[in-house]
Amino acid sequence: MTKERLYLYDTTLRDGQQTQGVQFSTAEKVQITQALDSLGIDYIEGGWPGANPTDSAFFTEAPKTRAQLTAFGMTKRSGRSAANDDVLAAVLNAGTGAVCLVGKAHDYHVTEALGIPLEENTENVAASMAHIVAQGREALYDAEHFFDGYKDNPAYAISVCKAALDAGARWIVLCDTNGGALPAEVGRIVSEVIAAGIPGDRMGIHTHNDTEQAVACSLAAVDAGARQIQGTLNGLGERCGNANLTALIPTLLLKEPYASRFETGVSREGLADLTRISRMLDDILNRVPSKQAAYVGASAFAHKAGLHASAILKDPSTYEHVDPSVVGNTRIIPMSNQAGQSNLRKRLSDAGMSVEKGDPALGRILERIKAREGEGYSYDTAQASFELLAREELGQLPQFFEVKRYKVTVERRKNKYNKMVSLSEAVVVVKVDGEKKLSVSESMDDTGSDRGPVNALAKALAKDLGQYSAILSDMKLVDFKVRITQGGTEAVTRVIIDSEDGQGRHWSTVGVSANIVDASFEALLDAIQWKLIRDCAGAK
Amino acid sequence: MTKERLYLYDTTLRDGQQTQGVQFSTAEKVQITQALDSLGIDYIEGGWPGANPTDSAFFTEAPKTRAQLTAFGMTKRSGRSAANDDVLAAVLNAGTGAVCLVGKAHDYHVTEALGIPLEENTENVAASMAHIVAQGREALYDAEHFFDGYKDNPAYAISVCKAALDAGARWIVLCDTNGGALPAEVGRIVSEVIAAGIPGDRMGIHTHNDTEQAVACSLAAVDAGARQIQGTLNGLGERCGNANLTALIPTLLLKEPYASRFETGVSREGLADLTRISRMLDDILNRVPSKQAAYVGASAFAHKAGLHASAILKDPSTYEHVDPSVVGNTRIIPMSNQAGQSNLRKRLSDAGMSVEKGDPALGRILERIKAREGEGYSYDTAQASFELLAREELGQLPQFFEVKRYKVTVERRKNKYNKMVSLSEAVVVVKVDGEKKLSVSESMDDTGSDRGPVNALAKALAKDLGQYSAILSDMKLVDFKVRITQGGTEAVTRVIIDSEDGQGRHWSTVGVSANIVDASFEALLDAIQWKLIRDCAGAK
Repeated sequence: MTKERLYLYDTTLRDGQQTQGVQFSTAEKVQITQALDSLGIDYIEGGWPGANPTDSAFFTEAPKTRAQLTAFGMTKRSGRSAANDDVLAAVLNAGTGAVCLVGKAHDYHVTEALGIPLEENTENVAASMAHIVAQGREALYDAEHFFDGYKDNPAYAISVCKAALDAGARWIVLCDTNGGALPAEVGRIVSEVIAAGIPGDRMGIHTHNDTEQAVACSLAAVDAGARQIQGTLNGLGERCGNANLTALIPTLLLKEPYASRFETGVSREGLADLTRISRMLDDILNRVPSKQAAYVGASAFAHKAGLHASAILKDPSTYEHVDPSVVGNTRIIPMSNQAGQSNLRKRLSDAGMSVEKGDPALGRILERIKAREGEGYSYDTAQASFELLAREELGQLPQFFEVKRYKVTVERRKNKYNKMVSLSEAVVVVKVDGEKKLSVSESMDDTGSDRGPVNALAKALAKDLGQYSAILSDMKLVDFKVRITQGGTEAVTRVIIDSEDGQGRHWSTVGVSANIVDASFEALLDAIQWKLIRDCAGAK
Repeated sequence: MTKERLYLYDTTLRDGQQTQGVQFSTAEKVQITQALDSLGIDYIEGGWPGANPTDSAFFTEAPKTRAQLTAFGMTKRSGRSAANDDVLAAVLNAGTGAVCLVGKAHDYHVTEALGIPLEENTENVAASMAHIVAQGREALYDAEHFFDGYKDNPAYAISVCKAALDAGARWIVLCDTNGGALPAEVGRIVSEVIAAGIPGDRMGIHTHNDTEQAVACSLAAVDAGARQIQGTLNGLGERCGNANLTALIPTLLLKEPYASRFETGVSREGLADLTRISRMLDDILNRVPSKQAAYVGASAFAHKAGLHASAILKDPSTYEHVDPSVVGNTRIIPMSNQAGQSNLRKRLSDAGMSVEKGDPALGRILERIKAREGEGYSYDTAQASFELLAREELGQLPQFFEVKRYKVTVERRKNKYNKMVSLSEAVVVVKVDGEKKLSVSESMDDTGSDRGPVNALAKALAKDLGQYSAILSDMKLVDFKVRITQGGTEAVTRVIIDSEDGQGRHWSTVGVSANIVDASFEALLDAIQWKLIRDCAGAK
């Protein structure tokens, strides 16, 4: 069976930039364009040249792409020809092979917002499309508020689209501008519009996520015959965002009826790069990636329920609708009090500890995890602390050194320039190789800024651990998370510390206490101990 | 036209707790239950009693609700009667009015995972339902992997559901356990199952968000005749989450065809509380609320595009599919323009400060807020700190006392019984009424437990503030939230403190520093200052 071609149109750089707090630099736009191009997107909308300095600069510096680079703008205004509209001229001057112009399709907006007769708007749309085609470019018409317009005045909404089509537009894109349309209604209207004479292979769909259904609305339009989908990476976009291409692409490529029926520009290799591209965008935006994101989230293939986790170990297809590696993601079986013994044995063996099935230590470990979770600990992410707890229960926890005591002071006072400054100082006393060692550190970093008591404590602890100091020299704290939680009847503080070392290892540890400094200290100690176990296993 | 009743079933406390990193305490479960009940949810699934200590404890302490409190478990195992299954007995012992049991509906899972004949599984499901009904409880059957099972062996999947129905189950819930089903297919299968004899008004739908379509799948099932929706607040849940009730409820109440056709237990007042409830859950989880969340996100009604923002000022309905106030949310128009200043004036007048339109202080306040937000401050919730900042800029900030310096020590060492204990001690030096006062406090509470350095500091600060001490005596810290903003070594700590007083006032303040103790101190100082302004306005 020959597959039908389905086109993907990305607007991350234009509508995606309407996200609150998002403003791409030109260099970032170039980087995103290259990622989209390697993924196999058909059209990349780069911005509105003339409306925004960064957008104009981007088109000047835009990389060469296999994808059709597209400039966005609006249809010509009344009272002048398309050739004499300076706003439109700026869009065309970007020199892209395709140009997409938004124009009204809802009669209310024509009469109220533009204040012109309906026919005049239709002529503006048609003349704009004809002008783009006359310049040898591919023309796209974004029919603004199409679904609301169709519900109020279907004849007018269709007539504008037909005028654009007749004027040579390659694509008529039905936009649900305010995000209010629901999938069933999108499907019905797309069918009716096709029946009214706009061919499905000339029709695009542009949806927003205001009811959390932008993906479903896009698929409903495809089911009804539309053959172009507009969306953004990670669902960026105005208000609740646009249709999320990161969720749509795997569904189109991996799931029926789409996989057998359609062909897109995205290859299997591109698909396997999707998780990386999604995280790269969050990196550019300095955002924490959404763990629960479909397909690409860190939790998308995390199996916490005990029943699920044990079935997954037998056959992943039991609780996974697709294989995580196909989208470049990985399976996670977190440790938690809901997980069973088989999950536990798998975790232990991943950490290099083999325990026989039925070993009574398994029950003891699960009991201790349960009890500690009751106190506020969490081992979902803190795998290294989990391992230490298990080792202790199995009698496999070496003692490298002993902390006898520590003391931290936090002080705030005026300095000699009469300015309020703060400073912390930590003293740690450890016994290592039979010798008592006192270390002291303060909380100033290289620039003279106070980094706080936990920083001082971490430095003092690592300062002199005898023979182990050399091993710890390539270790570094990369993240520090604090959460106030309820342990028993009182609020306690849970600290999670992420560490990494020169060998590319990453590990997380947890500490819990009503005293935040003490909770941090516990997590720090675990982090160091885990590293020492890895690098000097013989040092028991 | 009489509306049909549509039932809402919340599983935030059970399936929602399968979210990676989520573990509710009993107190948090009670708080969420009360919020769900006030919202008007029909069924609240509280957890799996017997499988999890916190779940068991919750049912013991569960509040009285209008909603049907429901215990979750699994259908009885083979080789024993329902009455003799201890796992099932633990579920029934929770004493809830309704009991929901998950059981296989996919033949592959029966033969492979359970390793029993298909008929035996059917009998286990039926006997379990009959047992619940015989105890005078309402019985619900969660048909696990129903959609995959139906695709592989429709006759078997339907026969299990029928057996449950015949045994007295009030609801047969079709579960898309691995989240792989798409809306069109859910709609088709639900229609077929109803045609096969499971009435729609006895049928529920339970979906997951693995293709970002859990909401659309739920609505497709309702379109096809199902009359119960299972979901969670904010879409919490295993992997990518469950169907998001926070998105579904407004669509069901506000949008056609649902608004005219169905009645739920959620009133207009409940709906107007939805944004608050959604944020409360994130607060409990110490998560940053998703700005782009449908209906309740902070950006859900933010209009960044210039064209949109100006149209919105004329007529909000042009770019908003629903009125934000209906779901308790607010419209945001970027601070940079005219609307930013009128918003600010409104906020100031709410705090009792009237500022003339066009006052240059307005621009200065906006600039300072912007700069401080760049440093990690957040004034969304910390209204009291916002007010202090504005007062300072307006020259309306009285100085009641001056903190000269403070010092906190945190110590951990062995006590006389050779047990490791920790203790903090704080000294604060203030100048009040021209007099210098030294105060010292330690971190022990009445029970002799260490409550940490911030506790010691708060007590020392409030200990002697001269004439103001009496005013502060009815003030109390009720919550303390810590968030690390930015990651890695440049991380700063944001502390938000919620306070209340004997007059029923509640207020929140914020402090930011790389040093967590200092960030806490800043928020404490703001909290005290706000209280003093309220209670001794003449004391400038």
